[in-house]
Amino acid sequence: MPRFIKRTSKKAGLAPGTLIHIGEKKVEAARITVIDYDKEQFQQKELETVEECFPFKEEPTVTWINIDGLHNIEIIEEIGKCFDIHPLILEDIVNTAHRPKLEDLDDYVFIVLKMLYYDKESGSVKSEQVSLILCQHCLISFQEREGDVFSLVRERIRKGKGHTRKGGVDYLAYALIDAVVDHYFIILETFGEQIEELEEALVTSPTPEILESIHHMKKEMIYLRKQVWPLREVVASLRRGEIALIRESTNIFLADVYDHTVHVIDTIESLRDVLSGMLDIYLSTVSNKMNEVMKVLTIMATIFIPLTFIAGVYGMNFKYMPELEWHWGYFGALSVMVGVGVLMVFYFKRKTWL
Amino acid sequence: MPRFIKRTSKKAGLAPGTLIHIGEKKVEAARITVIDYDKEQFQQKELETVEECFPFKEEPTVTWINIDGLHNIEIIEEIGKCFDIHPLILEDIVNTAHRPKLEDLDDYVFIVLKMLYYDKESGSVKSEQVSLILCQHCLISFQEREGDVFSLVRERIRKGKGHTRKGGVDYLAYALIDAVVDHYFIILETFGEQIEELEEALVTSPTPEILESIHHMKKEMIYLRKQVWPLREVVASLRRGEIALIRESTNIFLADVYDHTVHVIDTIESLRDVLSGMLDIYLSTVSNKMNEVMKVLTIMATIFIPLTFIAGVYGMNFKYMPELEWHWGYFGALSVMVGVGVLMVFYFKRKTWL
Amino acid sequence: MPRFIKRTSKKAGLAPGTLIHIGEKKVEAARITVIDYDKEQFQQKELETVEECFPFKEEPTVTWINIDGLHNIEIIEEIGKCFDIHPLILEDIVNTAHRPKLEDLDDYVFIVLKMLYYDKESGSVKSEQVSLILCQHCLISFQEREGDVFSLVRERIRKGKGHTRKGGVDYLAYALIDAVVDHYFIILETFGEQIEELEEALVTSPTPEILESIHHMKKEMIYLRKQVWPLREVVASLRRGEIALIRESTNIFLADVYDHTVHVIDTIESLRDVLSGMLDIYLSTVSNKMNEVMKVLTIMATIFIPLTFIAGVYGMNFKYMPELEWHWGYFGALSVMVGVGVLMVFYFKRKTWL
Amino acid sequence: MPRFIKRTSKKAGLAPGTLIHIGEKKVEAARITVIDYDKEQFQQKELETVEECFPFKEEPTVTWINIDGLHNIEIIEEIGKCFDIHPLILEDIVNTAHRPKLEDLDDYVFIVLKMLYYDKESGSVKSEQVSLILCQHCLISFQEREGDVFSLVRERIRKGKGHTRKGGVDYLAYALIDAVVDHYFIILETFGEQIEELEEALVTSPTPEILESIHHMKKEMIYLRKQVWPLREVVASLRRGEIALIRESTNIFLADVYDHTVHVIDTIESLRDVLSGMLDIYLSTVSNKMNEVMKVLTIMATIFIPLTFIAGVYGMNFKYMPELEWHWGYFGALSVMVGVGVLMVFYFKRKTWL
Amino acid sequence: MPRFIKRTSKKAGLAPGTLIHIGEKKVEAARITVIDYDKEQFQQKELETVEECFPFKEEPTVTWINIDGLHNIEIIEEIGKCFDIHPLILEDIVNTAHRPKLEDLDDYVFIVLKMLYYDKESGSVKSEQVSLILCQHCLISFQEREGDVFSLVRERIRKGKGHTRKGGVDYLAYALIDAVVDHYFIILETFGEQIEELEEALVTSPTPEILESIHHMKKEMIYLRKQVWPLREVVASLRRGEIALIRESTNIFLADVYDHTVHVIDTIESLRDVLSGMLDIYLSTVSNKMNEVMKVLTIMATIFIPLTFIAGVYGMNFKYMPELEWHWGYFGALSVMVGVGVLMVFYFKRKTWL
Repeated sequence: MPRFIKRTSKKAGLAPGTLIHIGEKKVEAARITVIDYDKEQFQQKELETVEECFPFKEEPTVTWINIDGLHNIEIIEEIGKCFDIHPLILEDIVNTAHRPKLEDLDDYVFIVLKMLYYDKESGSVKSEQVSLILCQHCLISFQEREGDVFSLVRERIRKGKGHTRKGGVDYLAYALIDAVVDHYFIILETFGEQIEELEEALVTSPTPEILESIHHMKKEMIYLRKQVWPLREVVASLRRGEIALIRESTNIFLADVYDHTVHVIDTIESLRDVLSGMLDIYLSTVSNKMNEVMKVLTIMATIFIPLTFIAGVYGMNFKYMPELEWHWGYFGALSVMVGVGVLMVFYFKRKTWL
Repeated sequence: MPRFIKRTSKKAGLAPGTLIHIGEKKVEAARITVIDYDKEQFQQKELETVEECFPFKEEPTVTWINIDGLHNIEIIEEIGKCFDIHPLILEDIVNTAHRPKLEDLDDYVFIVLKMLYYDKESGSVKSEQVSLILCQHCLISFQEREGDVFSLVRERIRKGKGHTRKGGVDYLAYALIDAVVDHYFIILETFGEQIEELEEALVTSPTPEILESIHHMKKEMIYLRKQVWPLREVVASLRRGEIALIRESTNIFLADVYDHTVHVIDTIESLRDVLSGMLDIYLSTVSNKMNEVMKVLTIMATIFIPLTFIAGVYGMNFKYMPELEWHWGYFGALSVMVGVGVLMVFYFKRKTWL
Repeated sequence: MPRFIKRTSKKAGLAPGTLIHIGEKKVEAARITVIDYDKEQFQQKELETVEECFPFKEEPTVTWINIDGLHNIEIIEEIGKCFDIHPLILEDIVNTAHRPKLEDLDDYVFIVLKMLYYDKESGSVKSEQVSLILCQHCLISFQEREGDVFSLVRERIRKGKGHTRKGGVDYLAYALIDAVVDHYFIILETFGEQIEELEEALVTSPTPEILESIHHMKKEMIYLRKQVWPLREVVASLRRGEIALIRESTNIFLADVYDHTVHVIDTIESLRDVLSGMLDIYLSTVSNKMNEVMKVLTIMATIFIPLTFIAGVYGMNFKYMPELEWHWGYFGALSVMVGVGVLMVFYFKRKTWL
Repeated sequence: MPRFIKRTSKKAGLAPGTLIHIGEKKVEAARITVIDYDKEQFQQKELETVEECFPFKEEPTVTWINIDGLHNIEIIEEIGKCFDIHPLILEDIVNTAHRPKLEDLDDYVFIVLKMLYYDKESGSVKSEQVSLILCQHCLISFQEREGDVFSLVRERIRKGKGHTRKGGVDYLAYALIDAVVDHYFIILETFGEQIEELEEALVTSPTPEILESIHHMKKEMIYLRKQVWPLREVVASLRRGEIALIRESTNIFLADVYDHTVHVIDTIESLRDVLSGMLDIYLSTVSNKMNEVMKVLTIMATIFIPLTFIAGVYGMNFKYMPELEWHWGYFGALSVMVGVGVLMVFYFKRKTWL
Repeated sequence: MPRFIKRTSKKAGLAPGTLIHIGEKKVEAARITVIDYDKEQFQQKELETVEECFPFKEEPTVTWINIDGLHNIEIIEEIGKCFDIHPLILEDIVNTAHRPKLEDLDDYVFIVLKMLYYDKESGSVKSEQVSLILCQHCLISFQEREGDVFSLVRERIRKGKGHTRKGGVDYLAYALIDAVVDHYFIILETFGEQIEELEEALVTSPTPEILESIHHMKKEMIYLRKQVWPLREVVASLRRGEIALIRESTNIFLADVYDHTVHVIDTIESLRDVLSGMLDIYLSTVSNKMNEVMKVLTIMATIFIPLTFIAGVYGMNFKYMPELEWHWGYFGALSVMVGVGVLMVFYFKRKTWL
């Protein structure tokens, strides 16, 4: 549940633009890394103080400043002052309960994304907030903690392979968003495999544990949906061509990310439908089993109840009970019982209950 | 239920623009407070009569007139006359059954909001209507009773911290709407925690009380949805930039409130989905338990019914029953019974009922 | 059901524009009333013949012609000829099975509304069709029978209170639509109270009658929805400012009616949600009760079945049954029975069935 | 089912524009009828060969060519050549599995409609395809077999009543569409009456047959919906005023058909809702009955199980059972039994099970 | 399940535009075929190397290059270089997990389609990806393996029948899309027939196997929907007339494909509704059967329980039981039993349980 509603109430009543870190503190100390490159050169540094990154601000090379750790409000504030970021934007960066969104402020574009991880222990999805600020010559990214998803992009830049070094800041922004969205597929595949396993288990032996797993999966899908759905709008805004900082040559790449996002949403919806179908199967299988149990009870009871009654009648102690005196009375009674039993079985057969 | 439909029928048939207070009388006497400020100065007064606030009308400073208590029709009428408010607007102010809406009348903008409180006693949400009239130089707010939500805004103005004193009337309007929306998060968190507790209780022992709580929560969500959904449209209209009284510099703040409103609606929808899932879990848990009970009955009955029948047979009083005379007859009968019982148990084991 | 589909089949195959009265004849004789007024004067007459109302047609005063009773085709035809109404419009007026709609024919605007009444006897909503024709200087209204809703408007005009006398024909049209929509709130309140009563009864004793009432309510909501939903589009068209006969000054009033209509639809949807929730509660309460019944059966049966079996065993008439000879055999058997019973009770306690 | 998917697979792989009749052959020989009229004159002929209708093509009078029977591909092809119809259109005419649609090809407008009949024997709706080709001076209609719905239009033209003779080809097209849509109401009324009967039967005795009927009705509604829904778009396109061949004077008539179509769709939706409600009522009634049955079993079993046990105890054959010797032992045992029974009844009363 | 989510995770982290074949390798060696034609001539060749197809690139005749097999990345790359295809497009071609889409890059149009096959063995639908690249003078198609659907188009071109040879590249593209969509109808018919069979079986004997089949069908429908739904948007984009490479004369053909696509989607939705209805019927039939079983149990038990009790009473061994001494005691007891039994039967009859 805490995933669905993060504690943002401590912000209520404060002046808008007041920076308060909402969320867990996931790293000890915030870390600032700068990567500066163009077609010819590449340079990577870890910074001690925020001020060191200011010189990169106006250089024509592409500068990527990455901050891991959001609890250090001062760093965020200094960056905000240096790059002239609106306080409300800074507030959104440190509030990790935000939903994906895009804000175009002409001088820079602000993007909030959700990085999703599959937590094996709890079997559920955890999200981390990634914020991007896209300026003229530099891109600032904020993460809750150092993530391994961006390291692949970093590697590609360093090696200078593909389009990566030739593209500008907007291409870098695309590459980061693409890395985040690509990671969603890994989570979907994990769930896809689990659902497949569940489906097989469902056919062989429907236990309450399977039911629980189905419900758990459904909840995960609600959560995934909540995280991914707004992203579609974000990417759609990016590719619509109305943002000055996005060059036309980047559009085809954004169209690709958009396709992936739609594909993710599509798959989530399909999995939800499949899970609903599994729930129906579980319920009807259980109810079928129950019916079978009840039938056995009914058949046993219905066959033996009249027989037991007959035995009871001849167990009565009346003085004068002529049948009791008959030599073949006992065997006659037994025959009657067998006859009644066979009749009942025939009746059930005709009713197709047996 | 009275929350869902307030008694507005006493208005039916009256001329439009007739002022009738719809709702409970929540304070004894209406109270009028005026706050007047600009960048340099700040002044707060409690007024005895409505007339005292008229001088503020044309001054270039920002004036915030707050009225607590709507049952005093005369005060509303006097304010209406002074600020030249349309009678239909005045009617909407005193009708607390109104849904959130925005009306732009060029000279002023009229906004209806719903302030929500969590009532611990009944465990349900109560709403109060807040109306704002945004004029050129002043903002008039109407509340059903003195609320503590606005007092924080008042405090911020007094201290002159942040953007608050520098912004105009439109910024003040934003600040009040923001305070109202921020308060929604507190309610959602309260519910979120309760749902979390319910979820845990659901796993350990699903009692009918939990079912009742889930249904109660679902109803609260319907109510919340009804109150918050129209607000989205109100804030969207505000930020769309078509209202002359809203300056462009306030737009980014309104975009922020809009995000929060969407976030609230999103969360309500997610909670509804989670509650539906819980209902399903409850029902299937109960049905699982029931099945287990029925199985025990069936197994007990099915094992003992044939045994009791055998005992019944040898309890019959027929004169000639050869088995009764046999020396090991009794122990033979007992063995047969044990054999039948063991067979049944094997049968159930094979059917995986045990 | 006849409410959902009125017999319109007798019209099939006829030429378009053929006047046929669809619906019940609700009054004996049609009645024509004329009210003519402007700011200074007021005049009300009941007319014998249709021709008497023709002189009012071109006068600059506001003229309201009201016809009660639609089965008299000739009157409708004469009015149609005099005011130059298209035959298809006349056909729609006498066909009371029509859904709310608005048609702008430049010279006049045609509006169909549904007047709703709560019928106490059947506990269900009845609808009556009201058609309005709004011309340059006069408004013609058609009702199935004399309604008390319009009489309040008539009273307001006579007394000359409020805006009523000052407004033009379009304001009169607004006043009538407003009277109709205001009446919906009374019906919703009636249902709201009944649902509240049902809700209380549901908690104390869920009888099949309550179930029936819930289903009845749900059906009423479907009917209400069907009647009110299209009205929203009608009022939205009116206020959109594209109709030449509606003056701008009337727009704020129409916006008010629009708000009310949306409020009505909102409330219907909320009530439907609440009713669905009640249905769920009913079903789970009944199923809980059933489970309890089954548990009692199972516990009783499961405790006594083995005991009865033991009694049966010692009721057998075998010659040689050593236990029968023992002095304390009987009390031993009783002790064993008590022991088995106590064991069962412990077992059930551990399973939390008791 | 064959209604839902007609065999169109024999077309797969053929060149577009290849004429293949899809559907049953419903008449022996195709029949061509021509009606030619204007304000003054009227002429009706049955034609032997297709060529006979060519002279009418360019005449300024309104010409209506009607073809009954679509399996004769040559006739369709000849008409196609004469009036210069695109092969794809001809293909659609003979493919009776098509959904309603409108295609504007400037020189002519092509409209596909579904004529619906209620088949009493199977109690279900059958559809027939009607295609219209609207040219400058003539209208060509294609039917699967001679229908009685168009004969009423023919009659109106012959008699020259109403607007019919004065209108042009577009009015004729309207008249035919109107005739088709009006016929839908007859089907809806048939279903409406059946649903009403079902509803009454549901209250008195809910048998599985009623359940079957409800399911049957629901399926018919799915089918109706599928047939009527696309028609709405067709009529909306016609009245949108973008089709050159439709004159403005016909617009008000098309608006009328549009209203009827929306009314039909509305009614289908309402009936679906009502049927869903009936299904719920059936299920809960049956479950209520079942609960009652189970209660009777439980009460009977629970009362007699302890009594039978007591009887069993005193039926044991132990040598030493002191109670058996007591003079009032028997009556004492009976009293205990009565006491236990009365206690159980009281217990059930308190639990409100009796 | 693997159908719903294909393994695309191996792409995560790679640079955009890196070609990786996602999907199974369905043919041994990739095969390249070229068909070159115009109105007069026709030429078909199988190529050994990619280079052979380059001469066709600029010729004014229509050239159709078909590649069967996507796992040979080098061929795709060479084609990409020759025709100047964007790397992202090439990436989409070899990623068979893509959803249908259309991308207009001015110089060429890229279309992804899903070819569907019904796999008899598993009774489920398999999909194969077909990509089309439509240039000025040539069309390149990529298939996972040689399909028989396109061979019919090839045949039509060879024979020169119909419009096929006269149309340009855009007509060829249409013909291929049409062939794919036409094939969907065959699958829908297969399912339609199976559903019809299921429906009949459902009425005669509802077994759990039928339930399983219904669930299987529902899942297939979810899958079909997921594959076909985006195609609608693709075809709609094609016919919207905004793509320079599509000539106006092809529009009417594309409108036809669009109609077919909508028809397919419509039919899928209807089948889903029908399947949901069948599920409801199955569940209520099973529940009806269950109720009948329970009733039999209840009636049997309830009739015999009191009788067995009476027999038990007279089986007690009390010394003094006056009835036992009576001469007609036994027959009296029997009569009482018969009487009680008859009374019970009457009671059940009155309750309409028998």
